[in-house]
Amino acid sequence: MIYLDSAASHPLLSEVKESLIDAFENCYANSESSHILGENANLEIERVREQLADEIGAYPSEIVFTSGATESNNIALKSLLPDEFLKEEKKHIIISAMEHKCIFSICDYLTQLGFDVTMVMPNDEGLIEAKSVSEAIRDNTVFISIMHVNNELGTINPIAEIGKICAKNGILFHSDAAQSFCKVPIDVDDMNVDVMSFSAHKIGGPKGVGAVYIRDLRKRNLRPVIHGAGQEQGVRGGTVAAPLIVGFGAAISKFNIYYREMDKKNIKKYFFDELNKENIEFRVNGINTLGHIVSLSLPKTKTGLLVRDNENSICFAQGSACSSKEIEASHVLTALGLSREEADSTFRISFTVGVKKSDIDILVSAIKKATD
Amino acid sequence: MIYLDSAASHPLLSEVKESLIDAFENCYANSESSHILGENANLEIERVREQLADEIGAYPSEIVFTSGATESNNIALKSLLPDEFLKEEKKHIIISAMEHKCIFSICDYLTQLGFDVTMVMPNDEGLIEAKSVSEAIRDNTVFISIMHVNNELGTINPIAEIGKICAKNGILFHSDAAQSFCKVPIDVDDMNVDVMSFSAHKIGGPKGVGAVYIRDLRKRNLRPVIHGAGQEQGVRGGTVAAPLIVGFGAAISKFNIYYREMDKKNIKKYFFDELNKENIEFRVNGINTLGHIVSLSLPKTKTGLLVRDNENSICFAQGSACSSKEIEASHVLTALGLSREEADSTFRISFTVGVKKSDIDILVSAIKKATD
Repeated sequence: MIYLDSAASHPLLSEVKESLIDAFENCYANSESSHILGENANLEIERVREQLADEIGAYPSEIVFTSGATESNNIALKSLLPDEFLKEEKKHIIISAMEHKCIFSICDYLTQLGFDVTMVMPNDEGLIEAKSVSEAIRDNTVFISIMHVNNELGTINPIAEIGKICAKNGILFHSDAAQSFCKVPIDVDDMNVDVMSFSAHKIGGPKGVGAVYIRDLRKRNLRPVIHGAGQEQGVRGGTVAAPLIVGFGAAISKFNIYYREMDKKNIKKYFFDELNKENIEFRVNGINTLGHIVSLSLPKTKTGLLVRDNENSICFAQGSACSSKEIEASHVLTALGLSREEADSTFRISFTVGVKKSDIDILVSAIKKATD
Repeated sequence: MIYLDSAASHPLLSEVKESLIDAFENCYANSESSHILGENANLEIERVREQLADEIGAYPSEIVFTSGATESNNIALKSLLPDEFLKEEKKHIIISAMEHKCIFSICDYLTQLGFDVTMVMPNDEGLIEAKSVSEAIRDNTVFISIMHVNNELGTINPIAEIGKICAKNGILFHSDAAQSFCKVPIDVDDMNVDVMSFSAHKIGGPKGVGAVYIRDLRKRNLRPVIHGAGQEQGVRGGTVAAPLIVGFGAAISKFNIYYREMDKKNIKKYFFDELNKENIEFRVNGINTLGHIVSLSLPKTKTGLLVRDNENSICFAQGSACSSKEIEASHVLTALGLSREEADSTFRISFTVGVKKSDIDILVSAIKKATD
C-alpha cells in the first residue's frame, strides 16, 4: 500500500537519487575499460561489492551483481545445478510453497530437465519449519531453496536452523533475501547459506539491479544464466551497470537508518489499536513478521468498494505486485489454507519508511467506511 | 576514446538524466501493480515499447525489455533454439568471426548441447559478405546471427542481403544492433530480421537496460533465459525497470538529433586530414563504416607512450571495452588478418556526439608527439 502524498518525497529516495545522478555523470564509462574513467567506475563498483559483502559477512569475491533478485534466483538454481548432478542421480530439490513465483517457474524448467521438486508447506502461522524441511530430505536431495522473509506476509523463516540441517546433510542451501536484506541481520556463515539473492529496489535503491552471493564462487564451475564477455568472474555477462550499483550502495548505506526509525514508531501496533477502536473485524496472517508488512484479512469489509473509493489516494495491493493482475488467489494465502473468498478480502500492506500516524488514520477511516 | 573535458557535460546526457530523475520519482511503483502508481509506470513502459517498435518497423508486442544487449543476445540464441530443433537434427548455426564476445560464449554453450557452429570470416574490408554466409548454409542450418554494425571497426554489414538469403532458406535470422540502433535506419521487415538486440547505453541512455525484438513473439513458444513471474509476456522475468526504460525512451528521442549534427561535421575526414598534414603514418581498418567509429592502426607510433602520456586527458581504448583488460589481441582485428603487433598499434576511436574539432587537434598532436 502506498500513500500518494508521501511516496516520492521521502528523504531516502532523495538521497539515493542524488547518488544516482552523480553516478550517471561520473560512472558512465565502461568499468571494464582500462582508461581512467573506466577505472573510476570500476573502483565504485568494487566499493559497493565490499559494502554488500560486509553487510552479510561474505567476501567481496563471492558477490555477483545482477539485474535483480529474479535473475539472482535464476543463477542460484540454474547455474549451481549443472549436468553433473543429473549424472550422479542427485536430482531432488526442496522449495517452500511460499517462494516468489519465479522460483516455481525455474523449478518447472528444472523438472523438464529431470529434477524432482518437493514443496514444503508453511505451518498455520505462515512459517516454514526446519522440521518440515528436514522431513522432506531424501538421499538424492541436492538443493534447498527457502526464502528468508515472505513478501506477502512478512514472516521471517528460521533460516539458520534450516541452514544447519542443509550443512549436516551436505545439501546446497539458497535463500531469497530480497525482502529481508537491510531489515533483518544476515550472516551467511551463521546461517549456513551457500547462495543468497538480493534486490536494490526493495530498500529504496534503483530498479534493475540486484546481487547474488555465492559461497566460494571462485572454486565453482558455474553455468552462466547470461553468457557474456567474461564480466563478473564469468558468471554474469553484460556491461556492468555502474550507476545502478552506486545507487544500490547508497540505499544500503541509508535504508537501515530510516527503517529503524520507522520500526521504533511501532506503526503496526498503532494500526491494530485503531482498527480495534473502530470495531473493525480483522485477522492478521502470519506471526514473527517484519515491522512494515501486514497481511490483513477484513472479512466484514467490502474490499472492492474500499479499493475503488480510494484509488486516487491509497494504492492497495492484493497478493504480490508481480502477479497482482492475475485473477487467481495469491499462492501464499492459499498455502496458508485461506479460501478463495478469504484471500479476496485480504490486503498486503507494506508501510513505506516515511509512514506517519496520520496516514494510518486515513487508512483506518477508509476501511471503516467500507465495512458493514 | 573519451575526452575527459567533454564527456559528461553533453546536452544529450543532461536530457536523458532529467528524464531518469523524473522517472525515478514518478515511475517507481511496480508496473505490474493494479493501483494508480503501477498503472502510470506501466503506461510509460508501453509508450517506450511503442516508440522502439516504431523506430524499427515492428509491433510493440514484439519488443521485450531486458538488462542490455548481452541479455538480448542470450535470448536470441538460447530462447529461440529449443529442444525441438535438436530433435529434428536441425542443429547448425552460423555466426561471424566479428560478433560480440558474448555470442561466442553462448555458442560454446550451444555446442555443448549438440549444436554445430560455423564461423564466417569477414572480407579484407571488415565486412561479412552475404555470399560467405550463403556458402556456409547447410541442410540443417537453423539459425544465423550476424551483427549489424561491428563495435570495433564501425563496419555496416549488408543485413538486408543476408536477411533475404535467410528468408529464402527458412532460417531464423538474428542481428545484434547494439551498435547501429538510432545511427543507421533499421526496418525489420525490409531486413528480414527475426530477432534483433538493442542497448540503451550505446545511445546515451542508462546502463542496465536494453531490448530484444522477436518477430511474431506471441506465436512462439520460448524458453526464458531469466524465468520469472510472467512479466514481459513470460519471456523475461524480473520487476520491469520502469525508470530505466523511460531513460531509454528519452535517449531514443534525442540521440538521433545530436548524431546527425555530429555526422554533418564530418569529423573523421577532418581527423584524417590533420593526420596527413602532420605526416603521421596510419591505416584505417574497414570500409563502409559509421561516422563516429574509427579503427586506426598507427605503425610508427609508440602506442604505449601515447596512452601513458595522456592518461589524464584522453581515454584510449584498444579492442572492445568489454574485454580491454585482456592480454590477447582483439578477435575482430585478428579476424581481419592483423598480426599481434599490428593489433597492438591499433586504437578503437569512438567520437562522442559532442566532439569538437579542437578535441581532434589535441588528439592529433598527442599522436604526433608519440610518433617517430
